[in-house]
Amino acid sequence: MKVLILGIDGYIGWPLAWHLNARGYEVYGIDDKSRRAMVHFEKSISATDILSFKKRQEILWANNMEASLIGVEDIMVDDLRTLNPDAIVHLAEMPSAPFSMADRTNCDHTIKDNVVGTAHLLWRIKEACPNAHLVKLGTMGEYGTPNLPIQEGEFLLTHAEEGKWKEKEVRQDRLLFPRRPGSFYHVSKVCDTYLIEFACRNWGLRSTDIMQGVLYGTRTEETMDKELVTRFDFDETFGTVINRFCVQQVLGLPLTPYGKGNQKRGFLQLRDSLQCIRLIIENPPDKGQYRTVNQFERVFSINQLAEIVKDVGGGGTIENIPNPRNEAEDHYYKPIRQFLPSVGYKPSKTMEEEISLMLKDLREVKGRIEPYKEVIIPKTLWS
Amino acid sequence: MKVLILGIDGYIGWPLAWHLNARGYEVYGIDDKSRRAMVHFEKSISATDILSFKKRQEILWANNMEASLIGVEDIMVDDLRTLNPDAIVHLAEMPSAPFSMADRTNCDHTIKDNVVGTAHLLWRIKEACPNAHLVKLGTMGEYGTPNLPIQEGEFLLTHAEEGKWKEKEVRQDRLLFPRRPGSFYHVSKVCDTYLIEFACRNWGLRSTDIMQGVLYGTRTEETMDKELVTRFDFDETFGTVINRFCVQQVLGLPLTPYGKGNQKRGFLQLRDSLQCIRLIIENPPDKGQYRTVNQFERVFSINQLAEIVKDVGGGGTIENIPNPRNEAEDHYYKPIRQFLPSVGYKPSKTMEEEISLMLKDLREVKGRIEPYKEVIIPKTLWS
Repeated sequence: MKVLILGIDGYIGWPLAWHLNARGYEVYGIDDKSRRAMVHFEKSISATDILSFKKRQEILWANNMEASLIGVEDIMVDDLRTLNPDAIVHLAEMPSAPFSMADRTNCDHTIKDNVVGTAHLLWRIKEACPNAHLVKLGTMGEYGTPNLPIQEGEFLLTHAEEGKWKEKEVRQDRLLFPRRPGSFYHVSKVCDTYLIEFACRNWGLRSTDIMQGVLYGTRTEETMDKELVTRFDFDETFGTVINRFCVQQVLGLPLTPYGKGNQKRGFLQLRDSLQCIRLIIENPPDKGQYRTVNQFERVFSINQLAEIVKDVGGGGTIENIPNPRNEAEDHYYKPIRQFLPSVGYKPSKTMEEEISLMLKDLREVKGRIEPYKEVIIPKTLWS
Repeated sequence: MKVLILGIDGYIGWPLAWHLNARGYEVYGIDDKSRRAMVHFEKSISATDILSFKKRQEILWANNMEASLIGVEDIMVDDLRTLNPDAIVHLAEMPSAPFSMADRTNCDHTIKDNVVGTAHLLWRIKEACPNAHLVKLGTMGEYGTPNLPIQEGEFLLTHAEEGKWKEKEVRQDRLLFPRRPGSFYHVSKVCDTYLIEFACRNWGLRSTDIMQGVLYGTRTEETMDKELVTRFDFDETFGTVINRFCVQQVLGLPLTPYGKGNQKRGFLQLRDSLQCIRLIIENPPDKGQYRTVNQFERVFSINQLAEIVKDVGGGGTIENIPNPRNEAEDHYYKPIRQFLPSVGYKPSKTMEEEISLMLKDLREVKGRIEPYKEVIIPKTLWS
């Protein structure tokens, strides 16, 4: 099975390549190094000391994999036709909500990278390899926090109206579960959703659109070797919340939930994100099918996470800070997750085990990240 | 009341300026002439012999209005702050489904004009005039043709689940009615919807997002003078269906519904679109409110329209041709329309009266449009 990974230099893309390679997949990838550039622009670094892209290309090559230095917009139809992948995993988007909210230029950048990029990709797939399975990374954040259970993609809507003979006429249709995105980044992911759903319905493409929860973790089974380690961001813009808390813990800084900290989200370990993506590749949708998968392990509040990191780390302080975002801080949250358990997904480790490993890894690079501790506290405001 | 019209050179924008001017509004506008360029590129012309943009600028100026030759992306925050409009009517988007489906470049063009353009505009409004009422033109086509009544914007979803004491716990939330767009153009309008809804919710902007039916008509009360006439497109790409049928009728060509012709849509006269937009401006939403308005007069099938045009025109033939689009040809269709009647909207004329006037106007330019009759039959396929 041949897999093309868009964004092979990223937090997920890099270990995914090794995860699939270890299981006999033929792996190709592209990346335009934009994540490296953006983190540099934020005056931050990856906590882990990752190889240069050039060195990564060499080491992939030595292991029968290949990575090209191009972006999604540079994908040529002839190249894609020649490669003819069975699956294309699209991870090559601008992944940050704060980045998209900072100013107009960043918002433009987000929409062009993500929405225009996805449209470009859909046309290329249609022209070059219409049977390929597009595995697209969306986010649970597309849904926001409605006061209702969040369905997995489509849901059945029923409507009864008075019929001709005073009997109720019942009508039904399956429609995409409504979205309520909380940043321009999240809006861009909703736009992707509608683009892909339309392309599947109209052109008969096949796609799995992953609504992924918030990732955390430093390690995956296949990247334990020092030079294979994946990047790990901890700045306000590209660092996810548990990753930031773990860095704060290691640096002896207070852990800083935003606002009341009662916001609830779904979380997933990096290693299990790879497992899920592989299961999705192994169980493709039918031709013409647009499939949504809600991908997370458990729901926690931000305060609960801070407590867990503090406990695993053996003490420290938690200091709730003003919320830079505009989001509900007390809310119902019940996302439904059916697909992944049905194809055999099982969590690898408990959250405590994983956080314990993360803290161990981060303590080893404490000296490297200490000079950058200013990047953790948020400066980008939603207002 | 000061109104800024984006797309003042267009089919709606031009007569809207005169409609508002006649009622005491201060009118400003911008346009980048892209519609003229695109229709030229399609090797077609406006059936009506409209003034050049430069002459239109002069005649607006002589009537205390003003139009600048710039696009939405060129709007500067300082200029907008100085103008400080009460309402901004955004009509400056790429308006064609077939255009967006022709190839990748056109699809890109559509997303950049519409989605990136709307995002740019939202940032400018937020920075320059956050109290201005954004009146945005969307389309009924965002909804597609679900097997359920189409709500006007948000709808109440109810969910009951087993509570702790075996009693049903009932939860409710108001969510945007799900969309099922039928082309990349329609997807771009759905993206606009999510962008604007988020900007209202997050920044406290106010907006009315108009889901408009298909327009038809040559005339409006204030543009009866020959040099004030609005453009009228009849090519497959920019001509709406009744407008195309009327041109076919006048040229003695068969009227050509696509496919079975049982597709149903909501329709509205151009003159009533102006009435609706004015009523929306006169009845603005609250600060922070995102309001959806379903804007059409009546629902017809395409075959019914062809019959009406044929009857009013006194004979002719109807010839259903293969459908270039991918759309349901037999379907339920019941869009709900509550806002406009509640603020006093009333249709000006019957469809037959309006079509009779259109045919009269088009007969006068028969010699002008005859050489362009090849542009009517569709060449762009959805597949």
